[in-house]
Amino acid sequence: MKKVKVGIVGLGRLGKKYAEDLVYRVHQAEVLAACSLQEEERTYAKEKLGIPYVFTKYEDMLALEEIDTFFVVSPTTFHVAHIIQALEAGKHVFSEKPLGIELSRCLEVERVAKKYPKLICMVGFVRRFDPSYVYAKEKIEKGLIGKPFLVKSQTVDLDETAGFQMEFVKTSGGMFHDYNVHDIDLARWYLGSEVKQVFSTGGAFKYPEFAEVNDADNVLSTCVFEDGSMAQLIASRTAAHGHDTYTEIVGTEGILRIGRPSASTRVQIMDRHGARYECVSTFYDRFKDAFLLMTQEFISYILENKAPKLTLRDATQATRVASAMTESLFLGKGLVQLEAIAPD
Amino acid sequence: MKKVKVGIVGLGRLGKKYAEDLVYRVHQAEVLAACSLQEEERTYAKEKLGIPYVFTKYEDMLALEEIDTFFVVSPTTFHVAHIIQALEAGKHVFSEKPLGIELSRCLEVERVAKKYPKLICMVGFVRRFDPSYVYAKEKIEKGLIGKPFLVKSQTVDLDETAGFQMEFVKTSGGMFHDYNVHDIDLARWYLGSEVKQVFSTGGAFKYPEFAEVNDADNVLSTCVFEDGSMAQLIASRTAAHGHDTYTEIVGTEGILRIGRPSASTRVQIMDRHGARYECVSTFYDRFKDAFLLMTQEFISYILENKAPKLTLRDATQATRVASAMTESLFLGKGLVQLEAIAPD
Amino acid sequence: MKKVKVGIVGLGRLGKKYAEDLVYRVHQAEVLAACSLQEEERTYAKEKLGIPYVFTKYEDMLALEEIDTFFVVSPTTFHVAHIIQALEAGKHVFSEKPLGIELSRCLEVERVAKKYPKLICMVGFVRRFDPSYVYAKEKIEKGLIGKPFLVKSQTVDLDETAGFQMEFVKTSGGMFHDYNVHDIDLARWYLGSEVKQVFSTGGAFKYPEFAEVNDADNVLSTCVFEDGSMAQLIASRTAAHGHDTYTEIVGTEGILRIGRPSASTRVQIMDRHGARYECVSTFYDRFKDAFLLMTQEFISYILENKAPKLTLRDATQATRVASAMTESLFLGKGLVQLEAIAPD
Amino acid sequence: MKKVKVGIVGLGRLGKKYAEDLVYRVHQAEVLAACSLQEEERTYAKEKLGIPYVFTKYEDMLALEEIDTFFVVSPTTFHVAHIIQALEAGKHVFSEKPLGIELSRCLEVERVAKKYPKLICMVGFVRRFDPSYVYAKEKIEKGLIGKPFLVKSQTVDLDETAGFQMEFVKTSGGMFHDYNVHDIDLARWYLGSEVKQVFSTGGAFKYPEFAEVNDADNVLSTCVFEDGSMAQLIASRTAAHGHDTYTEIVGTEGILRIGRPSASTRVQIMDRHGARYECVSTFYDRFKDAFLLMTQEFISYILENKAPKLTLRDATQATRVASAMTESLFLGKGLVQLEAIAPD
Repeated sequence: MKKVKVGIVGLGRLGKKYAEDLVYRVHQAEVLAACSLQEEERTYAKEKLGIPYVFTKYEDMLALEEIDTFFVVSPTTFHVAHIIQALEAGKHVFSEKPLGIELSRCLEVERVAKKYPKLICMVGFVRRFDPSYVYAKEKIEKGLIGKPFLVKSQTVDLDETAGFQMEFVKTSGGMFHDYNVHDIDLARWYLGSEVKQVFSTGGAFKYPEFAEVNDADNVLSTCVFEDGSMAQLIASRTAAHGHDTYTEIVGTEGILRIGRPSASTRVQIMDRHGARYECVSTFYDRFKDAFLLMTQEFISYILENKAPKLTLRDATQATRVASAMTESLFLGKGLVQLEAIAPD
Repeated sequence: MKKVKVGIVGLGRLGKKYAEDLVYRVHQAEVLAACSLQEEERTYAKEKLGIPYVFTKYEDMLALEEIDTFFVVSPTTFHVAHIIQALEAGKHVFSEKPLGIELSRCLEVERVAKKYPKLICMVGFVRRFDPSYVYAKEKIEKGLIGKPFLVKSQTVDLDETAGFQMEFVKTSGGMFHDYNVHDIDLARWYLGSEVKQVFSTGGAFKYPEFAEVNDADNVLSTCVFEDGSMAQLIASRTAAHGHDTYTEIVGTEGILRIGRPSASTRVQIMDRHGARYECVSTFYDRFKDAFLLMTQEFISYILENKAPKLTLRDATQATRVASAMTESLFLGKGLVQLEAIAPD
Repeated sequence: MKKVKVGIVGLGRLGKKYAEDLVYRVHQAEVLAACSLQEEERTYAKEKLGIPYVFTKYEDMLALEEIDTFFVVSPTTFHVAHIIQALEAGKHVFSEKPLGIELSRCLEVERVAKKYPKLICMVGFVRRFDPSYVYAKEKIEKGLIGKPFLVKSQTVDLDETAGFQMEFVKTSGGMFHDYNVHDIDLARWYLGSEVKQVFSTGGAFKYPEFAEVNDADNVLSTCVFEDGSMAQLIASRTAAHGHDTYTEIVGTEGILRIGRPSASTRVQIMDRHGARYECVSTFYDRFKDAFLLMTQEFISYILENKAPKLTLRDATQATRVASAMTESLFLGKGLVQLEAIAPD
Repeated sequence: MKKVKVGIVGLGRLGKKYAEDLVYRVHQAEVLAACSLQEEERTYAKEKLGIPYVFTKYEDMLALEEIDTFFVVSPTTFHVAHIIQALEAGKHVFSEKPLGIELSRCLEVERVAKKYPKLICMVGFVRRFDPSYVYAKEKIEKGLIGKPFLVKSQTVDLDETAGFQMEFVKTSGGMFHDYNVHDIDLARWYLGSEVKQVFSTGGAFKYPEFAEVNDADNVLSTCVFEDGSMAQLIASRTAAHGHDTYTEIVGTEGILRIGRPSASTRVQIMDRHGARYECVSTFYDRFKDAFLLMTQEFISYILENKAPKLTLRDATQATRVASAMTESLFLGKGLVQLEAIAPD
């Protein structure tokens, strides 16, 4: 059985999860190398996961000939550089979302990737691999809800994570790039059109600190698409009940709603609080299976030499819209008309 | 507009509700008289509800010529006597359930009623008038679930009512006669067959006091019907989340479940307890509308001279089965074979 | 028992419901007169409901001295005139929503009403009287969800009603005035602030005919409030599953969602379509109880000489926002900044 | 990393699933051998799964020295023999449920196992490893629902599987041994007591063929436990909506209900059938994750030399109760008193 040789950069919260999936649960992958600035993380990779080579410098790992693909799970601000370097080293690349914060940088990645048409390069919009989201897509393609024309989608974190977020926000690009980038991608995917107009509003309703770093704790955006269809997207850091991400697709013949309540198990509790479901705490609790499925699928693309349906252009478009939302709310531009970008 | 003249006996917790419905919400009824041993209740009838005649003795009220029908909402142990007296006075009668605790006494009511074929006499199995239960019946009649062969039904009270119940239990006939009599009636209604065998178990799992009065706080019964179909009935006094009465009917082509969760409103709360519905507190909160609909319907039977579908025999059968359950558990008879009763 | 004497104008679909509630279920009201241009409706009032006086001309009914209050359930375009005439005739007035389509006309009603401070004048935003909406309001006032800062609310009709709507739309003022006026009122009620900015989008996604009359079959609006809080409002004529009106209020400590799914009963069906609830067909199926409660409460205001919490200014504000939405979408103005109106 | 060497007997429907989990998803296991009478299955094992040794005779596989543990996934009637042979060959054993159909044979396995105290032998009651069932157990241990005294549990298959079941029923031991054995195990687990009395009823309500082989398509049982607590267990082959297995545990302070509806995904569909969830089709769809977790956990017991909490006695007790139910219904014994068995 041929195995895909993997190197991974970034072993933080999410990087560790990718590494564990690749080592334990993706039997067609073999993790040869890991790179991190943190000694603790390198030790973890070497001793807990048995990864043979660990590096401090990404350039050193890039030099490893036998690697087939790099997984980029470094901080958002490094994604573009790490992807480009990997492509130029002749390797397939998987990168965590978002592709980048600036549209121009995303387009640069596209340009580089075009030079290496045999290399697979994908940005991980994980919800596209979640069984429930896939099921909804299949139902739509079978015509169950007629023509979709409205997407309501939200990425909502449990309040307890807001403390962590205050640190993270400094490099994440803000709520639109960090949270809604998923919802934007889903809206485009389900509606099959591109955004032409956005209007965003929001505020630091619970934690004024977020306003101080030019961010918010709750934001609401409306997107108008080229074909007239619409999306209404929300992001929040302040939910009391759990990570409450869900998406609703409204069509001319029916509606699909994915993921609400975000029950953590199939257990309904009936006690003095009523009849209730406890909810998942984090996006990872919710999308754990999807992360594994996405990783397995990416590895299978390499083995089968198959182009992913999820393209770099998808990632670029998500950044383009998140940037427009940022302009709308944080630069105070109100209703923002998006300029077209050259076709892929 | 012709109005039906009503006299009511019993103005306790539930009697007041009947009286208020009749006075305020059943526009084809006119309450002429009320009878109660309690002065407070008589004052309430006279002053709050504007009922012209109030009595201490039932016999005195019976003598009122102009009355068309009596509503018997007295304690369970008086139902049989009050019904028979009303019939013999030539009046239509509505009685709260159960008809009686002893089968022989129920049959006696049937015998008396037969002598007055023009008088309408109905025992109020209120769930048969609840819109959701009616909806289920209609769906079944239309064949939605094929042939029904299993009913699961429970009458479950909020724990807070257990204190009250300790008093009430002395005259109520115990959990089978007081609670499950509804579930028995529903199982017969939906399955269309008579019970031939019962096995009941249970105990005073939370409140040992109930065992001392030869009752329980939770009971579980299995019924086997003449045509082989089955019912599994539960009664409980100890629910933490609310009055949790529900009924499920299983057929060869589908299932209908009525009333769970017993949400008190359409409001879902999402807070640190999860995603939840608060539940109704009492059977009256749950069946308030059904009580009114039943009362309106009973009045319309009189005006239209129409025999109710819900017969005295239905009430007798419910008592017969509740008595068998009582024998099974409280007399320790285990599996009880029911003797047939002469056809109606 | 003192009774409030009522006259009603308009006996169409909804007018009949008001009349029936007033005749049969509001025992402190007595309907003396009804006015309609349709002979069938006048006959219905006289013969079915036993209303003593029926009129073709509103002016004739206004002349009836003994009337205490008029119920205005005429077409939207007549509301303002009918209300003003009733006030000038010295009568209390209840009017169906919306107050009017034009802000200036609403302000005119306010001016007239100010001249008659002893007369009660209320526009029926029925959801404020729905037990679930009231329950949510109480929970919020008790602090359950902290400070509310986002309302998501939608008024969504079953597709089957779209044919009827094609006729109705000609006088209703369009989707914002006819549908979202409720959601606007609720957002203001729950958030306690006024709208300063709106952006609306939408289209005739299923029925191009609506575009031809400068209306839509689905619209989506974002509102920004003076205190920074937000609302996202939807209206639709094309739902396949039923009338799917619901409202969600997001606060800093929790969320309340009212009314989804819009189950028609408490019966869950499990069959080859899955585990499902059938939904209500019309707004009246959903809000039947609320209509009665609102009518009862309005009558009690008159008896108790009590000013309603729901003011004319509330109705004016709803029209003001609905007009801004209309400008945003149908006049193509994009993001609309609302001008302040003089305080009440 | 030390790996546990595994041999597997039985590669039917479920055997293949175990083999795939062991090969692909249990990284501490290495499947060395597989045994099947079917050539197609042996080919599958060798070529698809890369299992080095395949056998037709179990005895031949038993002779493989390097194997640490055997997985017995052969037909129910072979479980006892295959387990005993494996133990006598000095190997750890995992067996699919049920342990056996006859109580005496189960006790024989226990006796043999006692001779090899160092060998781990576990019967796979998979629901004990399902995250939702585990979550419920933890909640109970933390006291959330007070003292549990009633379990309602059902194993209900989609109707479409009934054809397959007609074949399978010949060797499965009937509905109590094949279906309810899980529910019996769960009731004992959650209630912490042993069954002393059972009463079962049922019939072939949809498929008379089942009656011909002395089985049923729907059965209902009541269990009374030594400490007075109760269970009500159902099995069905005729559900229209999906595999509808669920368990409810009622305690003095609350209730936990696991798994209803048995939604196949997190997608709610709103269309002309209402607001609905589609349900899982088979027990494997429902318990796929639990099967993997159970297998991983069993392998970890071997590596860590740890006795499983789930004992052979648990499996024996489940058979004992299923046998009593079989006597109650199919031998017509009515209420069956269980004889005690010697302590473990």
